[in-house]
Amino acid sequence: MADTDTKRKTRGGGRAGAAARRGGAVIEQMPWNPPILIDPPVEPLGPEGVEAIHDGAMRILEEIGIQFLNEETLGILREAGCRVDGDLVFMDRDFVMEMVGKAPSEFTLTPRNPDRKITIGGRHITFGNVSSPPNYWDMSIGTKVPGTREMCANLLKLTQYFNCIHFAGGYPVEPVDIHASVRHLDVVYDKLTLTDKVMHAYSLGKERVEDVMEMVRIAGGLTDEEFEATPRMYTNINSTSPLKHDHPMIDGCLRLVRRGQAVVVTPFTLAGAMAPVTMAGAVAQSIAEALCAIALFQYVRPGAPCAIGTFTSNVDMKSGAPAFGTPEYMRATQMTGQLARFYGLPMRSSGVCAANVPDGQAMWETSNSLWAAVQSGTNMVYHAAGWLEGGLIASPEKFIMDCEILQQIQRYMDPSLTATGPEDIALDAIKSVGNAGHFFGIQHTQDRYATAFYQPFLSDWKNYEGWEAAGGVWTQERAHAMFKSIIANFEPPPLDPAIKEELAAFVARRKAEGGAPTDF
Amino acid sequence: MADTDTKRKTRGGGRAGAAARRGGAVIEQMPWNPPILIDPPVEPLGPEGVEAIHDGAMRILEEIGIQFLNEETLGILREAGCRVDGDLVFMDRDFVMEMVGKAPSEFTLTPRNPDRKITIGGRHITFGNVSSPPNYWDMSIGTKVPGTREMCANLLKLTQYFNCIHFAGGYPVEPVDIHASVRHLDVVYDKLTLTDKVMHAYSLGKERVEDVMEMVRIAGGLTDEEFEATPRMYTNINSTSPLKHDHPMIDGCLRLVRRGQAVVVTPFTLAGAMAPVTMAGAVAQSIAEALCAIALFQYVRPGAPCAIGTFTSNVDMKSGAPAFGTPEYMRATQMTGQLARFYGLPMRSSGVCAANVPDGQAMWETSNSLWAAVQSGTNMVYHAAGWLEGGLIASPEKFIMDCEILQQIQRYMDPSLTATGPEDIALDAIKSVGNAGHFFGIQHTQDRYATAFYQPFLSDWKNYEGWEAAGGVWTQERAHAMFKSIIANFEPPPLDPAIKEELAAFVARRKAEGGAPTDF
Repeated sequence: MADTDTKRKTRGGGRAGAAARRGGAVIEQMPWNPPILIDPPVEPLGPEGVEAIHDGAMRILEEIGIQFLNEETLGILREAGCRVDGDLVFMDRDFVMEMVGKAPSEFTLTPRNPDRKITIGGRHITFGNVSSPPNYWDMSIGTKVPGTREMCANLLKLTQYFNCIHFAGGYPVEPVDIHASVRHLDVVYDKLTLTDKVMHAYSLGKERVEDVMEMVRIAGGLTDEEFEATPRMYTNINSTSPLKHDHPMIDGCLRLVRRGQAVVVTPFTLAGAMAPVTMAGAVAQSIAEALCAIALFQYVRPGAPCAIGTFTSNVDMKSGAPAFGTPEYMRATQMTGQLARFYGLPMRSSGVCAANVPDGQAMWETSNSLWAAVQSGTNMVYHAAGWLEGGLIASPEKFIMDCEILQQIQRYMDPSLTATGPEDIALDAIKSVGNAGHFFGIQHTQDRYATAFYQPFLSDWKNYEGWEAAGGVWTQERAHAMFKSIIANFEPPPLDPAIKEELAAFVARRKAEGGAPTDF
Repeated sequence: MADTDTKRKTRGGGRAGAAARRGGAVIEQMPWNPPILIDPPVEPLGPEGVEAIHDGAMRILEEIGIQFLNEETLGILREAGCRVDGDLVFMDRDFVMEMVGKAPSEFTLTPRNPDRKITIGGRHITFGNVSSPPNYWDMSIGTKVPGTREMCANLLKLTQYFNCIHFAGGYPVEPVDIHASVRHLDVVYDKLTLTDKVMHAYSLGKERVEDVMEMVRIAGGLTDEEFEATPRMYTNINSTSPLKHDHPMIDGCLRLVRRGQAVVVTPFTLAGAMAPVTMAGAVAQSIAEALCAIALFQYVRPGAPCAIGTFTSNVDMKSGAPAFGTPEYMRATQMTGQLARFYGLPMRSSGVCAANVPDGQAMWETSNSLWAAVQSGTNMVYHAAGWLEGGLIASPEKFIMDCEILQQIQRYMDPSLTATGPEDIALDAIKSVGNAGHFFGIQHTQDRYATAFYQPFLSDWKNYEGWEAAGGVWTQERAHAMFKSIIANFEPPPLDPAIKEELAAFVARRKAEGGAPTDF
């Protein structure tokens, strides 16, 4: 896709490339190159299964209704012809499908560095950092502690450092050492100065949302018109399952869509707790909760960039604890992907686990969820790196371990791996080696060996003796050392000093004004 | 498939079920139920790609030839009309395709307990233990040590204990404390008494192969005719890549197929070392090496049960070390699956990793390889549990961790997860909960919660505080404790004492005779 952004040459040109080269100082990683999903999605449902879930979702909206705890929304939807009973809204399927039909199936998000523009939709898949854990864990601390601004900044540095992380999600850890009234100002300042990737705003009150939009506009050196001309950022909201949307989430989305920015609607439907114990029912409820909000946004701003999110998993029926990366989670994600394509909407899912530390369980659960994202045709993978304890802990070791999986997914999607031209079948090479000898030294190998295979940055492929001689370091310990080294050598991406000053001045002014209310 | 084995009622009846119930004493696991692959395979190649690899494999056999270091084979293939030049055999594609066409696309393997019969082919997937590592590692030893009979027996107990392990592969660790001349006698005795699952024989000289067949016959209480009437066991051989088959492997296979037993031919084609650096070339070479042996076996015994194996991966081009569970490995496995279906042959692949200890890397590499087995339509997954260090180490902790993934694959293939009937969509349940409350207590949940979701045996889904209060035990340590408990509580499967005596007498006699030559 040609980059037509006029800012590219003046402000953002070549930064991603330069950052990737600088990255070589600590590790060798793959270049910035968001993957294209070349495998067909895994589709467990036949057409009648898709229809059954769709019909279920529509009947939820028609017969049960969704609570919208947002006065403005009730007025809009009454005007749109929906039946509104108190704060309960009933939408018929014709209205929902007409509105959802206005949403684009693909859109772009352009951050302050236009080289980091990403496409959400089609067969594009993008990865974002873990978002919103209140707690932090690393190998040197060794236990779960509340997040701080420094921890948050360090995780933002990882977000910037790794080319396989394509967008900045919410706060990679909640910095509870900053007062909630001004937290968004400090963290978004850190995000905009430590990273040049796509930005997110929490929908937690109008002041926060407006402040973040203004800071993103300033960081991009944009006029209001330029800011609104194409999506520069996004918000992600959860419904309050079952079947309820709360005031600040809808309010924040409305503010963003009215200014041409993107929204992701992600119900959190834990089967057996906030949704039916049956996965198809949990998915149907999730679809209903997402579509009614997207219908609202399309009514308000036809063509507004929206994505449908899934966070359907199951609870442990022994304890009620949420489970992640389970077979049920994988199937729910795949089913939601089928429905997203049925509606022509971009899709968001997640990289998740229930494990408390970055061990074997953490990696099989996360692998399951990341491959489910691939299999479902997900466009936007939230929490793709750094998540532990069902999202209550952020860990830099886990972040780096996850990035190795993400790079492998990127490599897996390289069509050269399955090319079958004459030079790939390599009959001449096979003939030249014959029935003895090896392929190490031959020209066919020499011409290709440097790029033939995935090169890991964290995996240790030495044999046991070599690994032991190098200290016998387990994966999470190697990741910890790499974390320290990346942070020690981190260079923030270029930012015009005048813009940085303008951002700082904005933060100072808004702090002086008291920041945002904290009664959300 | 109806079980028509006449021994079922008299000797083996209901043992699998009883074993599963006894298993409940240590952990709650899923019942014996080899999964059916319900997802379509992942097929990176179009028809022209399949044709290109097929043509490459055929040209290898026609133009380059395969070395058969086996006099008998050279005579057979000369008689079959192949061009034989010294020990180099050239097969034309008509011969290869005619012979391969005689192989069944599906067959069964029936061990001494007929309830443990497995089907190899179609959409059946089965899992076997790690096979043949010379070394052992566990958390209490803490370093790599040579295998012993006790370690081997303990891993056999895990093989028997876990219902998600469907067949016994080679020795789960090589017991180097037993002299090589009699090792097969002791270990196969242990295998046949500690497990009742499908048996394997190494093709390492006629005495070993004949001894194992005889022991399997005795253990099953079978006459020679009964033993030969249906496959009771199998061997797996590797070619000596590039393009060579060694004497004992071919000899062992010939002995098995002549008695109606099954063979798996698995070239070990490491791209960039023993095969071209390009994955399609490595796969083409692997296919050629496998098909020429299968063609031989079909000429000797038309309809002999054969499977095509893949062990195509890549080396680390920096060090030459083999890599496993990489993106290249996944794609090679998927491509081989396409070719196996093209030839109508059952397929074998593996659960593999390069990691040296059961940590995060071990699990993302193993997850990649196990899901690649699923995606490729593999029927027989070797090394599915317990493998470390590229196959040089067996680990009981890794065994148990892998079994959690295998159980999840079994659960993932349960069609109930994606059922979309009215009771699954659960509109009435959603209506009854409405816009507040939860689903924990309702009848729809109560009726289903006990079996609704995957129940792990090793994963810890407690929150951090609960996990920490329980000792803060990492996955590999939990697996170690489970290993100790399973071994302490292990009960061998039932075996007629007269048969056990007959086996012991056979072992004693063959030891007195000196066992097998050790010059292989």
